[in-house]
Amino acid sequence: MRDLLPDVVRTRAELLSRILNGFAQFGFVQIETPLVEEIHRLLSSEGGENEKLIYKILRRGIGHDWPPATEADAVDLGLRFDLTVPLARYYATNSESLPHPFKAIQTGPVFRAERPQKGRYRQFTQCDIDVIGDPTLMVEVELISAMAQTLRACEIGAFVIRINDRRLVESLVRNAGYTATQSPAVLVAIDKLDKLDIEGVHDELQRIDAGKPTKCLVALLEALHGTRGFGATLDVLASQVPADVLEGLSSIVEGVHAADDWVAIELDPTLVRGMGYYTGPIFEIEHGDSAGSLGGGGRYDNMVQKLAGIDAPAAGFSIGFERLCDVMHGRLATTNEVHRIALLHKKDEAVAVIARVAQALRAQGNIVRREAAVKNRAAQLQRLDKAGFTHWCEIDNGQASEPASLHQLTERTTHS
Amino acid sequence: MRDLLPDVVRTRAELLSRILNGFAQFGFVQIETPLVEEIHRLLSSEGGENEKLIYKILRRGIGHDWPPATEADAVDLGLRFDLTVPLARYYATNSESLPHPFKAIQTGPVFRAERPQKGRYRQFTQCDIDVIGDPTLMVEVELISAMAQTLRACEIGAFVIRINDRRLVESLVRNAGYTATQSPAVLVAIDKLDKLDIEGVHDELQRIDAGKPTKCLVALLEALHGTRGFGATLDVLASQVPADVLEGLSSIVEGVHAADDWVAIELDPTLVRGMGYYTGPIFEIEHGDSAGSLGGGGRYDNMVQKLAGIDAPAAGFSIGFERLCDVMHGRLATTNEVHRIALLHKKDEAVAVIARVAQALRAQGNIVRREAAVKNRAAQLQRLDKAGFTHWCEIDNGQASEPASLHQLTERTTHS
Repeated sequence: MRDLLPDVVRTRAELLSRILNGFAQFGFVQIETPLVEEIHRLLSSEGGENEKLIYKILRRGIGHDWPPATEADAVDLGLRFDLTVPLARYYATNSESLPHPFKAIQTGPVFRAERPQKGRYRQFTQCDIDVIGDPTLMVEVELISAMAQTLRACEIGAFVIRINDRRLVESLVRNAGYTATQSPAVLVAIDKLDKLDIEGVHDELQRIDAGKPTKCLVALLEALHGTRGFGATLDVLASQVPADVLEGLSSIVEGVHAADDWVAIELDPTLVRGMGYYTGPIFEIEHGDSAGSLGGGGRYDNMVQKLAGIDAPAAGFSIGFERLCDVMHGRLATTNEVHRIALLHKKDEAVAVIARVAQALRAQGNIVRREAAVKNRAAQLQRLDKAGFTHWCEIDNGQASEPASLHQLTERTTHS
Repeated sequence: MRDLLPDVVRTRAELLSRILNGFAQFGFVQIETPLVEEIHRLLSSEGGENEKLIYKILRRGIGHDWPPATEADAVDLGLRFDLTVPLARYYATNSESLPHPFKAIQTGPVFRAERPQKGRYRQFTQCDIDVIGDPTLMVEVELISAMAQTLRACEIGAFVIRINDRRLVESLVRNAGYTATQSPAVLVAIDKLDKLDIEGVHDELQRIDAGKPTKCLVALLEALHGTRGFGATLDVLASQVPADVLEGLSSIVEGVHAADDWVAIELDPTLVRGMGYYTGPIFEIEHGDSAGSLGGGGRYDNMVQKLAGIDAPAAGFSIGFERLCDVMHGRLATTNEVHRIALLHKKDEAVAVIARVAQALRAQGNIVRREAAVKNRAAQLQRLDKAGFTHWCEIDNGQASEPASLHQLTERTTHS
């Protein structure tokens, strides 16, 4: 977990504001869920590995019964590890008060008790959009368009949306002779194509079922992994995959391009995405400056039913906010044209005078930080320049001197 | 803890944005601290009652050593119960990278395991401004001015800033013959003047020291509690309170009024504020529509030293965001002039057509939610109106019909 310094918070706030505005343009509305959920709900989701990383909260008033017999006796709440479990519960609780279909924006911190390492944090921010209650492909089109336009507004440069369908890759696996029971493990192996080479994936497949002749599947995966086109790839797949799945994918791409023909969108038949709950189209954001994906999502038609007992089709797209910030580092052009003025005053200047002069500058729309002048004027101004102030002035005879550009001045000082 | 519905989140987001902009105008910069802190730090702060309400987090990997001998063995982290403890730690950790004096904005959720009751939540939001490293009265002037201008920008109607100084009320208590040891308990009793009547406070004082003749102090408190002026009240206090304390208060008020002569600011010599850590001027926001204060703060010159081992004078002012939202309920004039359009389409309309038409409307700056038209058109439009949409149109021959005002239409429907 990290402290965030003022500069970092300023960039993050600007970025988050662009994200929320981008999503809102598509009619998504923001909701908020508590950071804490009941532990049994967190443990019964399909969170996979994430369930092992839950921060568990000690039951209040347990002091009287110390020591607790089991961990289950000691714990009743936990910190959420994603925004999807809370969304499903939220939907079940508040369905009566929500518009249908429900198009939600959620953003906020989630927690995973991971071993600290570069680029991984124990508290980090997710930004999700989800549509609950609409089974049509228009949902996938809107999720991808909303995400693409929002990322463009964030000025992150070129990116590619990779798209696939769980049913497509599952067909390949089943056609290769794997059973429905083996399929999830095979998908996990295929998901490693980006990290392992094709030999490594072959070894993984042999471990799942040594008796299976995997050569054909492996060759197919190898061929497909590089393609990333639509036309030729779809031809190759036509004999292996149900026609409606392929038509659906084409239709999504056509819809996205009808609105935004600049969006780079590529079919990757080997895309799997880790989570067990996906049931249809899946997507991922690829960016040249990021080793991992900037975000991903897909359709999860059975999950709300499983978590909240309501039968509702659903699909979502999530931004990994920390990775986006890493890609953005120092690149975001500020839209803020307001002057940031440092107002200096003598240590013994009258309080009322300082207050009046500062207020007059603020009334002109400036951001004003006042501080007592110190002896080393040059050092003070350089420090203010570094802290992001654009101008400075001082109180002279009860009035502010004409604000001077801080940047020019410190440049002059440095060069003279 | 609560789920927040879209309407509520919209108002809260608008309010929070005005608060952050208001504070930023005074040169405060936003920081972020983790929601989780080490348990020993939370337990060694001067949080008083709040320390009993900490959500404690189970040590990870404790399963091997179950059951833990004591609660201390079982717990290493806790959820923060306010923003001041994290701020002090943040300052100690990051002091080298921060501007001095440091003027911080912090906002975010805090947690207290209270018994649920109306208007009290277990997860709630605070918005704090603090200045660390500046011992002068200009800090108090800026905190109060920044808060007053920010609340005005929130359009909350009339409010009063009550002001006092801890040293003032402590002088009264000591002059009445109480020892330094008794003083904190006496202050707690005086703090109840708003809830108990003067007889009740008298009883509390007798409980602290039955032998003390409290009549004089009680009479003084009674006289002062109603006054809330400056001139006459200061005269009464002149013989009881150090001159520099009274001058300081006058100087703060003068400074605030030099910038904003509309700020209602009243001296309340019986104001105490609960926390043990205040050392000088204290303040509180009073609003006609709220039983409790909307926020409060003051100078706490010893706290950073105690919590973080760095000697730094400090003062802060905090908004109780949930109470502010309660006062605001339904009153905030929206500044959002963007059209919110509901775009209806036939169920079997082509995906690419819907996407293109929706995009054309968005390109004009509108927020667009598209949904399939249902049979009962009137009910659908009424629902959209209620959900905050201003206009609707439908796809006709591959184009959007002219957007019509939803409000007028549903009004007509209702009245006809």
